[in-house]
Amino acid sequence: MDRPVRLEELQTPALLVDGDLLDANLRTMADALPGPRLRPHVKAHKCTTLARLQAEVGHRGFTCATIREMEGLAAVGLGDDLLLANEVLDARRLASLDARVTVAVDSAETVDAAADAGLREVLIDVNVGLPRCGCAPERAGSLADRARSRGLGVRGVMGYEGHAVGIADRGERERLTAESMEKLAAAHADVGGEIVSAGGTGTYDCNTLATEIQAGSYVLMDTAYAALDLPFHLALSVLATIVSVADGYAVADCGLKALGMDHGKPSIDDAEVWFCSDEHVTFAPQRPRRVGERVRVWPSHVDPTVAYHTCMQVVSGERVVETWPVDLRGW
Amino acid sequence: MDRPVRLEELQTPALLVDGDLLDANLRTMADALPGPRLRPHVKAHKCTTLARLQAEVGHRGFTCATIREMEGLAAVGLGDDLLLANEVLDARRLASLDARVTVAVDSAETVDAAADAGLREVLIDVNVGLPRCGCAPERAGSLADRARSRGLGVRGVMGYEGHAVGIADRGERERLTAESMEKLAAAHADVGGEIVSAGGTGTYDCNTLATEIQAGSYVLMDTAYAALDLPFHLALSVLATIVSVADGYAVADCGLKALGMDHGKPSIDDAEVWFCSDEHVTFAPQRPRRVGERVRVWPSHVDPTVAYHTCMQVVSGERVVETWPVDLRGW
Repeated sequence: MDRPVRLEELQTPALLVDGDLLDANLRTMADALPGPRLRPHVKAHKCTTLARLQAEVGHRGFTCATIREMEGLAAVGLGDDLLLANEVLDARRLASLDARVTVAVDSAETVDAAADAGLREVLIDVNVGLPRCGCAPERAGSLADRARSRGLGVRGVMGYEGHAVGIADRGERERLTAESMEKLAAAHADVGGEIVSAGGTGTYDCNTLATEIQAGSYVLMDTAYAALDLPFHLALSVLATIVSVADGYAVADCGLKALGMDHGKPSIDDAEVWFCSDEHVTFAPQRPRRVGERVRVWPSHVDPTVAYHTCMQVVSGERVVETWPVDLRGW
Repeated sequence: MDRPVRLEELQTPALLVDGDLLDANLRTMADALPGPRLRPHVKAHKCTTLARLQAEVGHRGFTCATIREMEGLAAVGLGDDLLLANEVLDARRLASLDARVTVAVDSAETVDAAADAGLREVLIDVNVGLPRCGCAPERAGSLADRARSRGLGVRGVMGYEGHAVGIADRGERERLTAESMEKLAAAHADVGGEIVSAGGTGTYDCNTLATEIQAGSYVLMDTAYAALDLPFHLALSVLATIVSVADGYAVADCGLKALGMDHGKPSIDDAEVWFCSDEHVTFAPQRPRRVGERVRVWPSHVDPTVAYHTCMQVVSGERVVETWPVDLRGW
């Protein structure tokens, strides 16, 4: 048997996943939303190995953001029920997948694209308050009619309350979620079908209308979601090496190209992060640090962070126990 | 001969490079800083095909930010004179390259790491005002002594005025650059050697002390640098497809995972960009747009944008003329 790799042997920057915390997150969510009550969003981790663990605890249907994610899940036998929760105009690659494929539609053009590509099933995507995709709730019924007239099965509706999921105040988050789901319920009454797909990690337990929740971040988490009142642990970090130390600050080799920055700077324990450069994070540590020491950098946004890395190292204490390819990157 | 691919056939999001504007940028810089006066920084494009064009117009030495970039350039025969302008503790991979390798050092630990790995040449990295790597100017001489005592050749100094390169006001940019280069000159007097390596795209013509400029962004550019008074054109964009249109806004399929976001939102011509999600940009167009139309999205920061893509499509008008792998990604 190979000697186990230790953390200090890893080349940095390295994407780390704490295996125990990951397991705890998987269990907590599977208890709260068992089986098909959760349709895990793979965009957060882009890793079929991790998706398989989600399937093993009972979630056999998945949510995807890209055609590449759909293809990758289908290729490893996780294609029982795949939802592409985004609109696409060129759906031809989806038609050949060895999987049950459902795609979100919100316009005549996207309905026609799905039908023309030979797809069989759709969800009507409804705008419930986030100005992104989704038709106006009052248009959902007629879009469903159009889809059915084109021979497509309409499984129901989806509507993402993305403007609510990140709100720290629980009462306000619940209020916005309820308001959003009223719109989705109205659309669902017009559309029919058995699925009401919605939600995210921030609203996994307060979205009580949806028949399935599309949470993804819960399994790895990030500092933005960790600021909420959620029972999920920060399992994801980037291991970095301190390469330079000066009076009052230190510099480690984890920068903009190893971290999603749209939610702001990453965090480092017992330190104030000043800024990131392409390959560096400059931070003020509370205690003296030495060149060569390792630090854990906590990303503020899991999805665009993972997308920069080719693999994640699963760790237990100071040991690397597995290496998982981030095999769903790209489009 | 294959039929040329047209832009409308590309799957989106797709990283586009305007070949004519790229050529103009290459020529403008080669005229201003001919031959070894420019040591192009490949971190901006991470593409050996593009590096070869830079070599063909006379710049045979390159600046790198990662060991992977050094390896990739050496592997394609562009290893005449490679500078790793970052500190590394584990330099072993560098020692086996078929290239002239110089590495930045700013501490006893990084000097020793270079010597222990069997490297031959270093530059003393000096902090000239940006709180990142680099020793204090007054320590540069003793570090050079240590390097020489360890058998390393000391080729000179480097010091990046990163706090100056992005300043819009030219007078202030020049003032900060001059102030920074005074520090570097003092360090150089103590260190010796023939190289004073510094600068970036924003200071390529006002840094008059450096013997070589480390500019990288100039060749592709981004909206942050385009806001300065520079003679380089925006050659880089991301092609996206409008997948949803609503009252007052539209959504295209280019999001956080196709764009570096640390410099802020991207831009779209004749539109106001509202926000980006993982795979979407929501924007308010000045004229009605239709589902299926293509848009060009202009990144605010070239380096972390390119690092998300596996290839760049070189375009001339509406035709794709070449596809270049982004082959220097990762670490």
